[in-house]
Amino acid sequence: MKLPPQGAARIEAQMAFLCEVDRLKSVVRATTLCDGSRRENSGEHSWHIALYAMTLAEHAAADVDINRVIKMLLLHDIVEIDSGDNPIFGAADQSAVEAKEDAAALRIFGLLPAEQSHEFITLWREFEAAKTPDAVFAKSLDRFQPPNQNLASGGGSWIEYDVSFETIEARVGSKVARGAPRLWAYIKPKIQNWFAQNR
Amino acid sequence: MKLPPQGAARIEAQMAFLCEVDRLKSVVRATTLCDGSRRENSGEHSWHIALYAMTLAEHAAADVDINRVIKMLLLHDIVEIDSGDNPIFGAADQSAVEAKEDAAALRIFGLLPAEQSHEFITLWREFEAAKTPDAVFAKSLDRFQPPNQNLASGGGSWIEYDVSFETIEARVGSKVARGAPRLWAYIKPKIQNWFAQNR
Repeated sequence: MKLPPQGAARIEAQMAFLCEVDRLKSVVRATTLCDGSRRENSGEHSWHIALYAMTLAEHAAADVDINRVIKMLLLHDIVEIDSGDNPIFGAADQSAVEAKEDAAALRIFGLLPAEQSHEFITLWREFEAAKTPDAVFAKSLDRFQPPNQNLASGGGSWIEYDVSFETIEARVGSKVARGAPRLWAYIKPKIQNWFAQNR
Repeated sequence: MKLPPQGAARIEAQMAFLCEVDRLKSVVRATTLCDGSRRENSGEHSWHIALYAMTLAEHAAADVDINRVIKMLLLHDIVEIDSGDNPIFGAADQSAVEAKEDAAALRIFGLLPAEQSHEFITLWREFEAAKTPDAVFAKSLDRFQPPNQNLASGGGSWIEYDVSFETIEARVGSKVARGAPRLWAYIKPKIQNWFAQNR
């Protein structure tokens, strides 16, 4: 089989993107693995969170399209290749972060053929805006995974950032509860229990 | 919000699964990152390959459901938590590997609520059997990613396992070409070129 020239150029562009995003495996997050052995990277985190969506789909609102949520989550952290991870309990300047992430999206998704680049950027912006039912559920899962990792590893980023239950409820709980109230109802007492025993 | 007891038990089972699969991030593959800095793990590989599916969907046969392919790829390596990765150029006893992987699937997917466990095992077995159009395309992508990583890193597992182009064509090329002939047509001359210059 011989590829027509335009076909080869299209695959070249797609592969330039798929090779560039390999760098997401080297972006390190605040959260550790469940066994506490090391911090997780944003590549493996993206896999884990897409599997969260596949497994926990029944806890989404009825109008959520889980296949779109999974695609959103596969893309959601790619901008961190340029901007780095911004820990939820950190004190980053939010508007500076957003400008950096938007430039990263244009550069990295811009490696793709034009209409596909537009499609991926649009899906990533929908996630960031967190207004549609799909994006709201995707954001809920992205906030729900770290407390599960922290409970498994014995505290993790809660200890490192010295946070209180009230901070978690405000920054994490409100977002989880917005898209997945059953998941917040499930984990809230476990977090309270951890704080009662360890803080 | 208070969860009914059966709802809490269901989420407990789903979270036991999602915490157990975190261990896939510690299963190391033969392939390295594109920059050659370290070997990749099967968790981040699973993310990368699901993104391959999302990006390269147009190169699948017309009857492929890319959403099912993505779900298959999110699950495809989970059994390696118990059985380890089996490098494509290694000399493992294939039937022993299959027995180990099947037992791993029963144990790990068995953590989920019964009907969801059945659904995930069935999807994983479909991938392994590589007979349906969705599974054939998923397998093609799983074989297509490592040569791209090897070309980027300067040889990778080709050097380590001292393989010839003919071995790659037989073990990798035939599988890529089966589900994604355009992708094999794209990469075959690049691999030939690498061997002409380096071997």
